[in-house]
Amino acid sequence: MSAPFSPVRTILRKREGGVHPSEEIEAMIQGFVAGSVADYQMTAWLMAIFFRGMSTSETACLTRAMIGSGRVLPDWAPGGAVVDKHSTGGVGDKVSLILAPIAAACGLRVPMISGRALGHTGGTLDKLEAIPGYRVRLEPRRFLEIVENVGCSIAGASEDIVPADRRIYALRDVSGIVESPPLIVSSILSKKAAARLSGLVLDVKVGSGGFMPTKAAAHHLAELLVAAGTDLGIRVEAFLTWMNDPLGWTVGNALEVAESIRFLRGEDVATDLTEVTIELACAMLRVGGGVDGGEQARSRVIDAWRSGRALEKLAEMIEAHGGDPRVTDDPGLLPSAPCIRPLLSESEGWVAGIDARAVGELVIDMGGGRRRVEDPIDPRVGVVLRVPHGARVEVGTTLAELHTSEGSDARGFEDRLRSAFRFDERRPRRRQVVLDHLDGQQV
Amino acid sequence: MSAPFSPVRTILRKREGGVHPSEEIEAMIQGFVAGSVADYQMTAWLMAIFFRGMSTSETACLTRAMIGSGRVLPDWAPGGAVVDKHSTGGVGDKVSLILAPIAAACGLRVPMISGRALGHTGGTLDKLEAIPGYRVRLEPRRFLEIVENVGCSIAGASEDIVPADRRIYALRDVSGIVESPPLIVSSILSKKAAARLSGLVLDVKVGSGGFMPTKAAAHHLAELLVAAGTDLGIRVEAFLTWMNDPLGWTVGNALEVAESIRFLRGEDVATDLTEVTIELACAMLRVGGGVDGGEQARSRVIDAWRSGRALEKLAEMIEAHGGDPRVTDDPGLLPSAPCIRPLLSESEGWVAGIDARAVGELVIDMGGGRRRVEDPIDPRVGVVLRVPHGARVEVGTTLAELHTSEGSDARGFEDRLRSAFRFDERRPRRRQVVLDHLDGQQV
Repeated sequence: MSAPFSPVRTILRKREGGVHPSEEIEAMIQGFVAGSVADYQMTAWLMAIFFRGMSTSETACLTRAMIGSGRVLPDWAPGGAVVDKHSTGGVGDKVSLILAPIAAACGLRVPMISGRALGHTGGTLDKLEAIPGYRVRLEPRRFLEIVENVGCSIAGASEDIVPADRRIYALRDVSGIVESPPLIVSSILSKKAAARLSGLVLDVKVGSGGFMPTKAAAHHLAELLVAAGTDLGIRVEAFLTWMNDPLGWTVGNALEVAESIRFLRGEDVATDLTEVTIELACAMLRVGGGVDGGEQARSRVIDAWRSGRALEKLAEMIEAHGGDPRVTDDPGLLPSAPCIRPLLSESEGWVAGIDARAVGELVIDMGGGRRRVEDPIDPRVGVVLRVPHGARVEVGTTLAELHTSEGSDARGFEDRLRSAFRFDERRPRRRQVVLDHLDGQQV
Repeated sequence: MSAPFSPVRTILRKREGGVHPSEEIEAMIQGFVAGSVADYQMTAWLMAIFFRGMSTSETACLTRAMIGSGRVLPDWAPGGAVVDKHSTGGVGDKVSLILAPIAAACGLRVPMISGRALGHTGGTLDKLEAIPGYRVRLEPRRFLEIVENVGCSIAGASEDIVPADRRIYALRDVSGIVESPPLIVSSILSKKAAARLSGLVLDVKVGSGGFMPTKAAAHHLAELLVAAGTDLGIRVEAFLTWMNDPLGWTVGNALEVAESIRFLRGEDVATDLTEVTIELACAMLRVGGGVDGGEQARSRVIDAWRSGRALEKLAEMIEAHGGDPRVTDDPGLLPSAPCIRPLLSESEGWVAGIDARAVGELVIDMGGGRRRVEDPIDPRVGVVLRVPHGARVEVGTTLAELHTSEGSDARGFEDRLRSAFRFDERRPRRRQVVLDHLDGQQV
C-alpha cells in the first residue's frame, strides 16, 4: 500500500533531485485542478522542476496528466493523416499561414491551434485577425468541420481543452518559471495531443528573436519534445532554425498576412522563408506517412504551392472562418498603415545582421503587439525589410519601410530600426536557416 | 532612475543566481505583506533562494525587511544586558527552561520568545504549558514587565511582531521550503532583533534529532547566523551541539519540566545537559558584556545554579505567568502518566546510540506531540532514559521507562523504543556534545 498523496512530499522529492512516480504527477495535477493543491504549492514545485529538470517519462506523464484535466477532440473520421506544426515563436514568423494550406493541399488534415503574440514575438491569431471578418474563436464542432471540409483550420484553443495548461501557464508567466524545457514541452504537447494528432513537426527557434538564446538550449528542448512526443505515440520531427534576423520580409500583422499571400502566389518570395517552409512542409508529409524519402515529399509540396492549390486552400479557410477570401487575390484589401516612410542607409557595407528581438520590440511599441494582455493591437503597423541579410548597401539605399499609425513618433522608430541593422566591411558567410533536424523514429 | 519594482524580475534575478539590491528585497516583503506580491510568487522566489542561496548582506537585508513588517519592542530601560538564546530544535532539549533562570540570576534580562513542537522536536511553549496555570500568551506590556521584574520570561510571539515571518513560515512549511539557511536565519534573527537584543547565543543542533543532518550543513547555517546577526548589530556566539541522542534523561513535556527543575535543584543531573547548559550560559554572559574570559563567566554561572538563585528565578517566572510555583519544590505536582512501564534490555553490551529522531517520533505517537497544528498534546506522556550513551548494560537492565496514557498500545511503543537503542560490543568513545564554537567578534 502506498502512502496517501502529499503535495509537500512531492515538492520535496523534486527539490532533492528525485524522480516522481507517475501517480504522484497525476495526483499533483488533479489536485491542482480540483483545488486541493494550492497555487503557491504549484509554483514551488514548478520552480523545483526548473532547477532539477524532468526525465522524458516524467515529462510525458506530466503531459498526459494535463491532457486528462479537460476534454480531448473526438476521434477523427477516416481520411488524410492529422498533422500539425508548432513553432516556439519568432519575429516575422508567418510560416503557419503558408504551411497549413500547403499541407492541406497535399491531402493532410491540419487542426492548428495557435496563440497570441508573446513577449517580442508575434502571434498567428493576431495576424489572422488582420483579415477583415476572420474569427479565431470557433465552436469545437465548427473547427472540426472546417478541418474535414477544407483540410486546415487555424483557431484559438477552446477553454475546455487542457484547462490545467492554461492555469499553470498563467502562474509560470507571473512567477518567473517560463524557461523550463519539461514545462514548455508538456504545455506544447498536451494541447497537440488533445487534438489527437498522428504527426507533429516542431520548429525550435535559436537566437535573440526566439526564447532559446543558445543552440545547446534549443537542442535540449527539441530532444525532449521529440522524445516525449514519441512516448505519447505521436510521430514527431523537430528542426532547429535560426531566429537572429526576422524571418522573411515583413514584421507586423497585416503585413505578414500580405507576405504569406504573395508567397503562395509566388511573388516576392524571401529565401529564408522558403527554406524553412519547404523543410517543414516535407516533414509534415513524412510524419503524416505515405511518402517515401525526401524527394517525393519535396515534389508534392512544390506542386501544391506552384499549382495554386495551396492559395485556394487559404482562401477556403479564410472564408470558412468568416473572413474575406478576396484578400488572397488582392492583398491590398488588408488594412494598411496611413504613413509609410523609407529608412535610408547612412552606411555602406554588407548587411551582417538585423536584430530580430529589437525589431520585435519596435513593432510592439509601434502598436503592433502587446505589453499587457488587455492592450489593443493595430494590425496595420510594422516593418518591411528591403534588403536581406548579406546584401551590399550604399549610403542612401532603402533598408526598410516603417508602416506607422497617425501621429506616432516616426523619427524615434526610425532611429531604433536603424540601430537594429549591423553592417560589416566584408561579405558575410551565407547563413543556414535550418540548423539541425531531429527525427523521433531515429532517436 | 531605477526601474519600478517587478516581482517577476525579482524572482528571475535570484533564479539566475544574481544578487538582489536591498530595495528589491524590501519591496518583495512589503509587497507580500500588502498583498501586491502573491503567495505563489513568494513561494517561487523562496524556492529559487533555496537553490541559489543568499549572501550575508542579502540575508541581513531580508531580516531587516521582515522586522519592518511589524512592530518592534520598545527600547529597554537602563539595566542588565538584554540577551537571548535560540536553538534550532532537538529531542529532549529543555535547555531554555534551565538557562533563562540561570541567566536572569546572573543579572541579565532574557525576553525569550519560544515556539511550539515542530516535526519530531519538542517545543518550549508546549513544555511550559505542562505546568498547571502557566500562560504562554501575554500582552506585550506584561511580557516586558516580567522581564524587568523577574529577569526572564518565556512566552509565545505576539501576533504583531514580524507578521511577515509568520506568513512566510506558513508558506514554507506547506511548500517544502523549510531547509534553506538564509530563510532559517532571517526567520530566527527577525524575531530576535525585534526584541531589541544586544546579545544572542545560538545552539545549532547536528544529527538525526535536529534538522541539520551533517556537521557541514550545520556549520554553514551557524556561520550565516553569526555573520547576519553581527551585520544587524547583535553580539552573537553560536555553538554546534550533538543531537543524535536525546539531550538529558527525559523526552515529553511534563517529564522535561520535571527534569529541568531537578537539574536546577542539583538532583539527577545528566552530563550532556550540564555540558550544553553551562557552555550556553557562559556565552550569554559574554555576549551580554561585562565579563572577561571564560573562568569568570563560568564561576558566576555555577554560583547562580548551585546557590539556588536560578531555581528561585524559575519559580518567580512561573508565578508571574499564572503558573503554580510550588512545582519547583515538588515536581510531583506536575501532571503524570497513569502507566509507567520499564523497558528491560534483551541484549548485553555498551549503549552506542539512542536514536533521537526515533524517540521524538515515538513520543509524538504516544500523544506528546502533534502531527497537525490542531492536534491536542498530552503533557503527561513520554520517555525517561535510565542509561546514558556509553553505559554498560546486561540482559534485564532497565534501559528506560515509558510513561503512557490510558489504553494506549504500550507494547508497540516498547518495541519502537527498544529498536531506538543501538548496542556495541566495545565501549564507545566518549562523545563530545559541544562540537564547535563561532564568535561574531572573531569572524
